[in-house]
Amino acid sequence: MIRRLCIFGVGLIGGSLALALRRSGFCQSVVGCSRSEQHLALAVEKGVIDTYCLDAAEAVQDADVVLLSVPLGAMGPVCTSIREAIREDAVLTDVGSAKASVVHAVSAAFGGAPAGFVPGHPIAGTERSGVEAAFPELFEGRRVILTPLESTAAEALETVRAMWQATGAEVEEMSVAHHDEVLAATSHLPHLLAFGLVDSLARMGEREEIFRYAAGGFRDFTRIASSDPVMWRDICLANSEAILKVMKHYREDLDAITEAVKHGDGDTLLAIFRRAKSARDRFCD
Amino acid sequence: MIRRLCIFGVGLIGGSLALALRRSGFCQSVVGCSRSEQHLALAVEKGVIDTYCLDAAEAVQDADVVLLSVPLGAMGPVCTSIREAIREDAVLTDVGSAKASVVHAVSAAFGGAPAGFVPGHPIAGTERSGVEAAFPELFEGRRVILTPLESTAAEALETVRAMWQATGAEVEEMSVAHHDEVLAATSHLPHLLAFGLVDSLARMGEREEIFRYAAGGFRDFTRIASSDPVMWRDICLANSEAILKVMKHYREDLDAITEAVKHGDGDTLLAIFRRAKSARDRFCD
Repeated sequence: MIRRLCIFGVGLIGGSLALALRRSGFCQSVVGCSRSEQHLALAVEKGVIDTYCLDAAEAVQDADVVLLSVPLGAMGPVCTSIREAIREDAVLTDVGSAKASVVHAVSAAFGGAPAGFVPGHPIAGTERSGVEAAFPELFEGRRVILTPLESTAAEALETVRAMWQATGAEVEEMSVAHHDEVLAATSHLPHLLAFGLVDSLARMGEREEIFRYAAGGFRDFTRIASSDPVMWRDICLANSEAILKVMKHYREDLDAITEAVKHGDGDTLLAIFRRAKSARDRFCD
Repeated sequence: MIRRLCIFGVGLIGGSLALALRRSGFCQSVVGCSRSEQHLALAVEKGVIDTYCLDAAEAVQDADVVLLSVPLGAMGPVCTSIREAIREDAVLTDVGSAKASVVHAVSAAFGGAPAGFVPGHPIAGTERSGVEAAFPELFEGRRVILTPLESTAAEALETVRAMWQATGAEVEEMSVAHHDEVLAATSHLPHLLAFGLVDSLARMGEREEIFRYAAGGFRDFTRIASSDPVMWRDICLANSEAILKVMKHYREDLDAITEAVKHGDGDTLLAIFRRAKSARDRFCD
């Protein structure tokens, strides 16, 4: 049970978590903190949080759990602003999509990772963003990956695990490095490919007439290109090493496909398409 | 009004068209023809077609409209088998995803494109295939592109236009070359990228454990990789020139993104992501 949860960044993820925890009774009160009083007031009005506070140090004062749900680039500055005020026994966790960069930012701000710090990442979201898009069922049946550090206290880990389980999520643990590689492959690379494709087509000199002939498959394929550009810039900068690694693999595979198309090599194309269909059919609905 | 429609290949597209035309009363009777008696019998049983015929020449004998809804590689052989039997005043049309190759195959089989031949392509479909997946609403509100040739008779064009309009589709005309470029960009390239990504990840040596962490965005992004491998091999072979052209553009754009990630160039990434999001939000739901 959490007595007082302080959430930095009350958007789709932070707001949905607040809604889920209040609904489940796992959390007595939620205070929100961000730079925009307008957004925070809206979050209170929509019943997402109980109260808000514009001053970061003040916001964390009585919190037993502090959640960082801000863009990756803001993790460090927020930690610096709460460093002196956060309770010594408080649990600190985050929802960042690239863990090494968050661990680095938190450790730098606190002069070493605090024992209460549990890096986390819910594998959930939509292409929409903002507190208006928040809903309490967002995490139901979804995976949340925790990447505890050597310095992480066992009780802090248990609190964060129980918090996510209360939202209906399945919680797993893995190393920071493994998380960053898996997400680069399954999330960051696909987003880059989709953003790149839509931009590429938009610039093909057809005055975007071309999109009129896009079928359902194209809409599905490019849905993630409607995601928040600032958030994705931050992710690309924060997880560049793992992204470049999977991009290299992918480009080699794309080379092979391109060569097969060029040489009319139907057998190679068929083998690739069959392997892909079979892998996807096994793992996705 | 069509008295007797003969459909070669009663799968998702051919079957859905038959259902839509019978429901609208635009067509009195539909005869199906394919290599599989089992599939044809199922199509009769499901009320998709009235009757079937395993002999191609016999199937077209009384048909006033003949629809080719077979894989691109089978267009030529089917035309050769009906060449002598098809009525001289019959309308011949198809649903192939690459028009130049169909025009070539039909012209080769008939010794020049017949006046009744109207190349066509409904921009509709799902990742599913087969007559089991057919439904009469598939074309409602979707675009159908007709690419009439110089040799195409005006009445034949009107019949095919009216046929598609009876399904609820919006019919447009463009040149064969323009069609093939637009579809390479909006459909063929995205399919190659999705097939390539799923195969690439499946081979990353994680025993496909990696797919467990794929979120909703990945499922949407890769849905088209569950499409029929044989059909897509045929499309790649049939429209290779246009596909290689758009692939070249796309790879240059992907190079620029990769360089920006490598050099931590957030401004370039943000500009690309913003252009893409804005283009997609304008054109897709």
